[in-house]
Amino acid sequence: MMKIGIIGGTGYTGGELARLLCRHPDVEIVSMTSRQNAGKRVSDVHNYLRGYTDLCFTEKVSGDEDLVFVATPHGVAMKEVPGLLESGIKCIDLSGDYRMHDVPTYEKWYGHTHTDTENLKDAVYGLPELFRKDIKGADLVANPGCYATATILACAPVMKTGCVNGDVFVDAKSGTSGAGMVPSARTHHATCGESIIPYGVGTHRHTPEIEMAVEMHSGSKPDVLFVPNLLPIVRGILSSCYFTLKDGASADDVLSSLEDTYAGERFVHAVEEPSIRAVVGSNHAQVGIKVIGNKVVAFGVLDNLVKGASGQAVQCMNLMLGLDEAAGIDFPGLGV
Amino acid sequence: MMKIGIIGGTGYTGGELARLLCRHPDVEIVSMTSRQNAGKRVSDVHNYLRGYTDLCFTEKVSGDEDLVFVATPHGVAMKEVPGLLESGIKCIDLSGDYRMHDVPTYEKWYGHTHTDTENLKDAVYGLPELFRKDIKGADLVANPGCYATATILACAPVMKTGCVNGDVFVDAKSGTSGAGMVPSARTHHATCGESIIPYGVGTHRHTPEIEMAVEMHSGSKPDVLFVPNLLPIVRGILSSCYFTLKDGASADDVLSSLEDTYAGERFVHAVEEPSIRAVVGSNHAQVGIKVIGNKVVAFGVLDNLVKGASGQAVQCMNLMLGLDEAAGIDFPGLGV
Amino acid sequence: MMKIGIIGGTGYTGGELARLLCRHPDVEIVSMTSRQNAGKRVSDVHNYLRGYTDLCFTEKVSGDEDLVFVATPHGVAMKEVPGLLESGIKCIDLSGDYRMHDVPTYEKWYGHTHTDTENLKDAVYGLPELFRKDIKGADLVANPGCYATATILACAPVMKTGCVNGDVFVDAKSGTSGAGMVPSARTHHATCGESIIPYGVGTHRHTPEIEMAVEMHSGSKPDVLFVPNLLPIVRGILSSCYFTLKDGASADDVLSSLEDTYAGERFVHAVEEPSIRAVVGSNHAQVGIKVIGNKVVAFGVLDNLVKGASGQAVQCMNLMLGLDEAAGIDFPGLGV
Amino acid sequence: MMKIGIIGGTGYTGGELARLLCRHPDVEIVSMTSRQNAGKRVSDVHNYLRGYTDLCFTEKVSGDEDLVFVATPHGVAMKEVPGLLESGIKCIDLSGDYRMHDVPTYEKWYGHTHTDTENLKDAVYGLPELFRKDIKGADLVANPGCYATATILACAPVMKTGCVNGDVFVDAKSGTSGAGMVPSARTHHATCGESIIPYGVGTHRHTPEIEMAVEMHSGSKPDVLFVPNLLPIVRGILSSCYFTLKDGASADDVLSSLEDTYAGERFVHAVEEPSIRAVVGSNHAQVGIKVIGNKVVAFGVLDNLVKGASGQAVQCMNLMLGLDEAAGIDFPGLGV
Repeated sequence: MMKIGIIGGTGYTGGELARLLCRHPDVEIVSMTSRQNAGKRVSDVHNYLRGYTDLCFTEKVSGDEDLVFVATPHGVAMKEVPGLLESGIKCIDLSGDYRMHDVPTYEKWYGHTHTDTENLKDAVYGLPELFRKDIKGADLVANPGCYATATILACAPVMKTGCVNGDVFVDAKSGTSGAGMVPSARTHHATCGESIIPYGVGTHRHTPEIEMAVEMHSGSKPDVLFVPNLLPIVRGILSSCYFTLKDGASADDVLSSLEDTYAGERFVHAVEEPSIRAVVGSNHAQVGIKVIGNKVVAFGVLDNLVKGASGQAVQCMNLMLGLDEAAGIDFPGLGV
Repeated sequence: MMKIGIIGGTGYTGGELARLLCRHPDVEIVSMTSRQNAGKRVSDVHNYLRGYTDLCFTEKVSGDEDLVFVATPHGVAMKEVPGLLESGIKCIDLSGDYRMHDVPTYEKWYGHTHTDTENLKDAVYGLPELFRKDIKGADLVANPGCYATATILACAPVMKTGCVNGDVFVDAKSGTSGAGMVPSARTHHATCGESIIPYGVGTHRHTPEIEMAVEMHSGSKPDVLFVPNLLPIVRGILSSCYFTLKDGASADDVLSSLEDTYAGERFVHAVEEPSIRAVVGSNHAQVGIKVIGNKVVAFGVLDNLVKGASGQAVQCMNLMLGLDEAAGIDFPGLGV
Repeated sequence: MMKIGIIGGTGYTGGELARLLCRHPDVEIVSMTSRQNAGKRVSDVHNYLRGYTDLCFTEKVSGDEDLVFVATPHGVAMKEVPGLLESGIKCIDLSGDYRMHDVPTYEKWYGHTHTDTENLKDAVYGLPELFRKDIKGADLVANPGCYATATILACAPVMKTGCVNGDVFVDAKSGTSGAGMVPSARTHHATCGESIIPYGVGTHRHTPEIEMAVEMHSGSKPDVLFVPNLLPIVRGILSSCYFTLKDGASADDVLSSLEDTYAGERFVHAVEEPSIRAVVGSNHAQVGIKVIGNKVVAFGVLDNLVKGASGQAVQCMNLMLGLDEAAGIDFPGLGV
Repeated sequence: MMKIGIIGGTGYTGGELARLLCRHPDVEIVSMTSRQNAGKRVSDVHNYLRGYTDLCFTEKVSGDEDLVFVATPHGVAMKEVPGLLESGIKCIDLSGDYRMHDVPTYEKWYGHTHTDTENLKDAVYGLPELFRKDIKGADLVANPGCYATATILACAPVMKTGCVNGDVFVDAKSGTSGAGMVPSARTHHATCGESIIPYGVGTHRHTPEIEMAVEMHSGSKPDVLFVPNLLPIVRGILSSCYFTLKDGASADDVLSSLEDTYAGERFVHAVEEPSIRAVVGSNHAQVGIKVIGNKVVAFGVLDNLVKGASGQAVQCMNLMLGLDEAAGIDFPGLGV
């Protein structure tokens, strides 16, 4: 059994990592840290884990982990990662700290200095379906954002066809668990429970991440207007991505691009009508595409806490540790 | 036009008062106070009031109001009311400060000393369908709680028949707006949005209020176990009240009690199947009753911000100021 | 009092018309028809109208109405309207039958022959903020679709600036009441209640309606990809409309277009952050706009049953009958 | 691998069985029947099963199954079961046909004649935590109802203490998936999506089932008023059960009854605050209890499609086939 640690185990992604890893056949969680809950039993804080772990939260990881997940806010992660790597511990960072390869881009969108540009150089963007080979050899993986994953999965193959213009509109809708566990005015049920609320128009940090990853895959950088919307469901993202066909370009190439790209994939599926309910609770994502005249819409759906966060992180872990890529996360969505 | 003030205009009940009063034919809002928003336009804070009021929030009421609504937290209200009454301004308090006529009961359930027991003596419990006459002559009305209104409307007539035992179980479900506008862990959408959460079992402050008001109407004090539940809707309460028939008692008397009590009422209706959607957005309440063997269930439904708070307060205001009881609040629920 | 009839009074828009008209100061509902409910009391079918109407459903209107609302499915409306007009009764049709001025366009999108092309010629598209003058003089008004209203209000002023390209992507989200009262697999709660479901991509009938009305206002016809989404709320639409600025065009002209167009309007408001909750339950709509680089997003929000259907129909009625345009519908949204 | 069939594979419980069994280590689904979908791929009908089964729906089971789940409506199941048992195939019936041991009770509540009273005699009520031994040896298991499971788990231990009266009020709330996949007026989102709707007061068929099973465990038959409510969530049940302490009875015995009964159980847990989110998606249930004065409330929560239906059926299957009771269903709830 490989030994696994989780830094920041109180939040939604930390709890979700534990939920997935506790039934993983090849690894064992040996440490979960939490400043506010140190000393408490994990299963008292995350009551759904009762019977699945005897662990107590600690202040720090033990140091003999094979791999540590860093599930802290951005800005904190880049303080934790250098020490871990130095101790020979592989890292998967679920924050945004190691996603942008370009330091000025990071600093512009995140609003503070990057203090670990050394390791940033070697960080691999952890979207297995597009960058599997790099993830396998990596010591540090930057786990993609939830909106970013749904959007990149839908957009990158379309861009790669060369048939669409680079101007892309992304209208993305996320369940409220994507906002994390800290209550706020926007996630207050009476505010958001019977509404859909666009926010952060043009300023959301997943914008440059999407542009970077799509370019890495397709070779050409899109210019994305990203509009996130808070949706009154708990788990699930629908990202609707709008393109214009280039003059004379083939609609067929665009239409087949998703199916071609994900043909052999375990977790990403090109389907006629992508459905949040089909994937919620699981590491599966669905993508779909329509062309109407010269206009294209590509959809991506996933569970923001699984394929959009902790499930994808486990998928990356499996690759980094030489395990079966689907180990521990190979089960279907709820469906209903 | 009578002049009206609102102390505590930022919260949900303060905004709802303004929403109702801005189309009231006989009164005019002349002041709305808010510590945090003093100086701002009311319609900038409550954007749905755009076009309906030019008022700005102030620190204090002007002093020449005919009646002031006090929509502050309990404990604060009893600091505001004495000065207003002394200035000859009638008051309707939407907090719990003047609901319990028994001081020790108040202090036990609210956890602090009552500092205005003088005015408390003359405060009238503002449920018009049961205590209309007293409200008409009152200078100080204690507006009932939202859960309490739904429950008392369903329970008081049943108890008055003398056909049921005094042991009453109340399983009440409320939309999240009943918890107010301050975000909390429980009202965080990801917590409550796809669940129903019982809380405060046996400790909710509406318990003694229900017992008191039912006794005032029926002459006998019930012993109530009150279990509130947070429901994933924004507006609306369903209170389900369970009784046992006394041996040999008449089911028919019980069955007709609601219809008899509310026969001529404008806002409370005995119906076969009470429905939240039928009343939401309006000052109407619906009640209903079934008897199965020796067991009785009475239902009460209403919109917690209207008949459960601000609408009922306006109804009381109308009575206190000698206006048509339904003025400004005589419109149907949304239905759909 | 003017006399009003409603053909098709069982459905959501028929009930909503009654809900609004029962408190209208200048008109009286004299007939509501329903095949399935003829003979029943309206307030037994629409229980929220208890106390607001004594009417019973009939098979036919009486014939002495001043104006009749036709709230039937498309295809049925065009059978009803000719006779009414011939009897000198003004009509407002809430179906799609009289919206398209171009017969082949109607027949292509609706899939059947138009049997009343005679009256179609004189039908006026009933969006008061853009076509008020025509509505005032009309005998037959085609009430706009719900999605169409939200979208046109946001798009028409932007297109009129001449600053944006004609390729428009519309990602619209609607509450489930927009689908009407007949249960279906898609509106089954377990299907849609914790999801967002895109449907009818490129085939929704509001597409040509949007293109037509935007062209009528702006002089240039947009090419719209319209993607509707079923949202797990009951009432409310958010239409998010994406444009590209023409090279060298002024962002400022675009940014001010909504505010300029709706400056004096009672029911349409340009605001910073349009909010469904601010308008739900009311005839108000809010629009907003952002420009990021060369990309534009304009938002429109409204209550699909009020400004998106029955409220707007009442607004048109007021204009057609020479009444105050806001009579009976001049109240704010729920806010919370 | 044991061979398993599912009769009635189109519905929610049939799909859920497949979702669970496809990752079960010791069994294999060899047949799924569906009249309407015969010939279609299971993963085309239940799109969440893509990649997890290659099966196509058939008209009939193959006949060489070791065990067949009957997931048809009541009335149909009792036509299917006799032939299966005769062929030596063990059966688990998810309908109500074999739950009532008393034929007149069945016929009164279900409204038709029981045509297989022969096998009914040997049917075992499949609630493993209370009747494990009987299930192990059974050829025919009647899988409990969803509401019934949540309610019996909370009530049976309390009744067994002998400390409470037999009059029990059950206020149960269920997610909409409990109503099955056929759309109806009540499960139409616009009807139920922003409400809570009590229905079938005193007439719900789980009433006699609860009374029977509680008596089987506790030795004394309760007199239950069962009030179900439709809750605007997809999965999850909260059953709130109200009792009165007998004079002089020990609150402590009642308080410890749940913990004592379920101490060693894998799937049922006595906790301070039972939470739907903690168990949703899993076979776990949580129960809790409070005593206030002479009044008791016991709560039961579970996922109606898992522990309330298909998960519990798999648990029974494991027992009947001599497998590990938790095989294939041993994973935690979603938590968030």
